[in-house]
Amino acid sequence: MAAGVEGVKAVVFDTFGTVVDWRGSIIADLSRWGAEEKISSDWEGLADAWRDKYEPQKERVRSGVIPWANLDQLHYEALLELLPAFGLSSLTPEQRSYVHHVWHRLNGWPDATAGLRRLKANYIIGPLSNGNIALLVNMAKHANLSWDAIFSVESFGHYKPHPDTYLGVARQLGLEPEQVMMCAAHPSDLQAAQQLGLKTAYISRPLEFGPNKHLLESNPGTWDVEAEDIEDLARKLGC
Amino acid sequence: MAAGVEGVKAVVFDTFGTVVDWRGSIIADLSRWGAEEKISSDWEGLADAWRDKYEPQKERVRSGVIPWANLDQLHYEALLELLPAFGLSSLTPEQRSYVHHVWHRLNGWPDATAGLRRLKANYIIGPLSNGNIALLVNMAKHANLSWDAIFSVESFGHYKPHPDTYLGVARQLGLEPEQVMMCAAHPSDLQAAQQLGLKTAYISRPLEFGPNKHLLESNPGTWDVEAEDIEDLARKLGC
Repeated sequence: MAAGVEGVKAVVFDTFGTVVDWRGSIIADLSRWGAEEKISSDWEGLADAWRDKYEPQKERVRSGVIPWANLDQLHYEALLELLPAFGLSSLTPEQRSYVHHVWHRLNGWPDATAGLRRLKANYIIGPLSNGNIALLVNMAKHANLSWDAIFSVESFGHYKPHPDTYLGVARQLGLEPEQVMMCAAHPSDLQAAQQLGLKTAYISRPLEFGPNKHLLESNPGTWDVEAEDIEDLARKLGC
Repeated sequence: MAAGVEGVKAVVFDTFGTVVDWRGSIIADLSRWGAEEKISSDWEGLADAWRDKYEPQKERVRSGVIPWANLDQLHYEALLELLPAFGLSSLTPEQRSYVHHVWHRLNGWPDATAGLRRLKANYIIGPLSNGNIALLVNMAKHANLSWDAIFSVESFGHYKPHPDTYLGVARQLGLEPEQVMMCAAHPSDLQAAQQLGLKTAYISRPLEFGPNKHLLESNPGTWDVEAEDIEDLARKLGC
């Protein structure tokens, strides 16, 4: 087992990008659905533009410009803004709902289901995600992610990286921060967790934003564990 | 499938007595442990006395006599009061902690693991329990209960039968009350859920309080489903 992680009892994951391939899933789902419904659009462009609204939206919530809104609500607002530019203004309410909920139907990276199942034998596992509870539950059913519990920022009323989110998981599980390991493909998420005393695992996801785009670099030696994927993480945690 | 339950998406369970055999588990666990530790007591009497403190404790929280305290905290207070009468005043802190956490190590009734696994294929399943989150997560690992999500009253700040607990599950899942089915061996729990528009399933557990004691009666025809156990429930819900 990797050094320094013997006391870890719970292993929690960022989900979008770390466990599920949001970009590939959205493009595949909406392309297939669009063909069936005879609706054409730039689905790849929509996925990227939708995600691009995510950071500024969370920032408006964090800074108090708008009151708390969960991720389903933020996704819906962003979608309404994007529909005209993608030629989708005339969707029926049912079609709009289908597109809106594509975030509930994301697929895991190929290693996710098997890796989590291995980790579950030795650890409490859960998402610690900016996704809302309904989204995370539906995503887990869809992608066959066998979480022990769902940790959503919706329970804490703050988006990551607010300290209440990382410390809230430890508190809810009756654990010390160092008994919880945060796993993410995003250094900023891990850094926030590390500063609060959680253990950290970096998971490499070079294709999150598509080929050759926005690759997030991680400095070797910064985190307790560095893994190629979730199966590799399971191996390195002795599962 | 039973009539009137076609729209149900989530099936949630009372746990103590309905899913797990708290009394039999506590007696078996502490009897075995006591023999190993050379500590003798009336473990059966302790289990019953401990549970007898539960209703009055919750009532003190509900009525505001004491501030919110989660079930681990209530169990600990009750245990401290009971130790002298059961000859356990001289337990070490580690021994006291072991006894306190016996509620995290309860076993499912024999049908629980298989029944829940069947239901999980078609429904979102979770506890809706007065147990706190850590307790429910640890219990699920111990008893092999493959919940999709943990719904604990700890998230709502009220013990059942407060309306926020039943309606809170529906809200967190983005569902209407009638899309959620509450399952319990206790008519009072089902009645509260039914009044708020949830579907209900009564699960018969004649041995919850031991042989021939405190048998809770349910009037036939009161609930949407009446089941002998959780496997029978799965069958009646078409799983």
